[in-house]
Amino acid sequence: MANKWNSDPRDALRAGEDFELAAFDRAATPGWKKGKKKARAFMASRGELLSELQERLYAHGRTGGARGVLLVIQGLDTAGKGGIVRHVAGMMDPQGLSIHAFRAPTEEERAHHYLWRIEKALPRPGYVGVFDRSHYEDVLVVRVDQLADVDWNDRYAEINEFERRIVDSGITILKVALMVSKEEQGLRLMERLDRPDKHWKFSDSDVPTRAKWDAYQEAYQDMLRATSTEIAPWYVIPADNKWYSQLAVTELLARTLADLGLGWPDVTWSIPEQRRALEATMKPATVATAHARTDATLAKVAESEAEFDQLVRSLFRF
Amino acid sequence: MANKWNSDPRDALRAGEDFELAAFDRAATPGWKKGKKKARAFMASRGELLSELQERLYAHGRTGGARGVLLVIQGLDTAGKGGIVRHVAGMMDPQGLSIHAFRAPTEEERAHHYLWRIEKALPRPGYVGVFDRSHYEDVLVVRVDQLADVDWNDRYAEINEFERRIVDSGITILKVALMVSKEEQGLRLMERLDRPDKHWKFSDSDVPTRAKWDAYQEAYQDMLRATSTEIAPWYVIPADNKWYSQLAVTELLARTLADLGLGWPDVTWSIPEQRRALEATMKPATVATAHARTDATLAKVAESEAEFDQLVRSLFRF
Repeated sequence: MANKWNSDPRDALRAGEDFELAAFDRAATPGWKKGKKKARAFMASRGELLSELQERLYAHGRTGGARGVLLVIQGLDTAGKGGIVRHVAGMMDPQGLSIHAFRAPTEEERAHHYLWRIEKALPRPGYVGVFDRSHYEDVLVVRVDQLADVDWNDRYAEINEFERRIVDSGITILKVALMVSKEEQGLRLMERLDRPDKHWKFSDSDVPTRAKWDAYQEAYQDMLRATSTEIAPWYVIPADNKWYSQLAVTELLARTLADLGLGWPDVTWSIPEQRRALEATMKPATVATAHARTDATLAKVAESEAEFDQLVRSLFRF
Repeated sequence: MANKWNSDPRDALRAGEDFELAAFDRAATPGWKKGKKKARAFMASRGELLSELQERLYAHGRTGGARGVLLVIQGLDTAGKGGIVRHVAGMMDPQGLSIHAFRAPTEEERAHHYLWRIEKALPRPGYVGVFDRSHYEDVLVVRVDQLADVDWNDRYAEINEFERRIVDSGITILKVALMVSKEEQGLRLMERLDRPDKHWKFSDSDVPTRAKWDAYQEAYQDMLRATSTEIAPWYVIPADNKWYSQLAVTELLARTLADLGLGWPDVTWSIPEQRRALEATMKPATVATAHARTDATLAKVAESEAEFDQLVRSLFRF
């Protein structure tokens, strides 16, 4: 499987210091020229790679490793946060996922510092954590609705410092902001009103929140500039096409996992010794069967490892 | 998609009071005569159904419902517990999953009653909880290794009482015991020793644990008889064929979710009122687009609901 991206989406999507949200095209597909159908097929193949990369991370975590990954998803209502969890995270083994949706804080959470509930939800080593909304709500809804009287620059600095500590602990942070246009949000909300199977996704606070569109754009703009750091940059994803936003986050996540460069962990016990002990508990005929299988299996494993290495290399080639 | 099972696997797999583990064929495929290849295809189609059923449960939970489901997976090393999580639970939306793997208790956990950590991990309303090992380790490894000095019948009764409380709270419990044969376990452990990509799954306590095979079988036999209750029966799954055990658990889970009989939740707000409010925030051209889409969408929804109903009915027809 060759790389079908025509340029590295990380370069195209990364928010810099002078990021201009107002000029951002939310229907664009940066780095991808092949359309929706090819995107779906490519995403499925990337899913297999994602799943293999995740298994190495999980194996690493189970054998004492400290590395982890945290995917932070932000976006307004209907931007497609749930779709990222379902269709991107959903391609990985749920055993190695740790998913948290942050809604309006509970009374207990409100009694603590706003980072308290975030800290508690950080992924353990070996896990891919997914935050559906996050501490960034504390500079978005909290700012727009004036729920706190703070200097926002202080809060951005506090968040940057918090993320530095997370990264220092071994967790790589991947932050994606899904940006939907106002008209597309209207269409998606209308669909939720029209379809009985989507009613549960609608809330009577959605239209009032939409009325604060401009204030949210301003809060996003400031947040993206102030908290897109070297160690935890923001990737801003055009989200009017769900197939593109899911494809882009899949690619960013695969690259993030590949960058960890994890192989299979070393063993801490003696293979020949364990093999002898195990053989002593098996019938001789079963031992013979096991050894007959080994060669065929190892050839298959070598083949799949070579395929994996090729896929990983393709992530970085254009 | 017609039902491809030739009899209800619930009848074939349910452990009764006189269940005889010694007579249980671990390579059998009760209720399924069509082999592995058809099983894989059928399982994928059931996966779509599972995912739709789960979405209804999740919607129910998000709108104040109390129902939940808990899948308890037990089995010795290599029985395929992880494969059930990956390949069965992995077909659902990870947003609606709550997965816990119970390993040897931590110091904090040991300081509490053995059900303390279990209670904390119970799924919230709307979720499908998955326990990879569970409180049943407290009548399995704890009994075999004599880690507690208790009357096992008292503990079975305590567990039955605990599960009654869980069921009374609205959570349906589905318990599956994956039963692998001793020779197949030997083959699978040998594979973990032979394959570098499986080493991390092997532990130097695996062979010593395998040496206690007979004691574990006895503990399983007693547990299955004593805790297969009317409200939370055990299903004993032959696990020498992974394709069968995954297929069987998929089917049991789909039926468990279908038995909840959940439709889409009712709305608590006025649809016309919300529609008017939303339209006021949209450009007239976008409103026209939205309304033009509605008819086509509703026809598609009705079609997919009809297909869903048919699939659900097929679960109960032989």
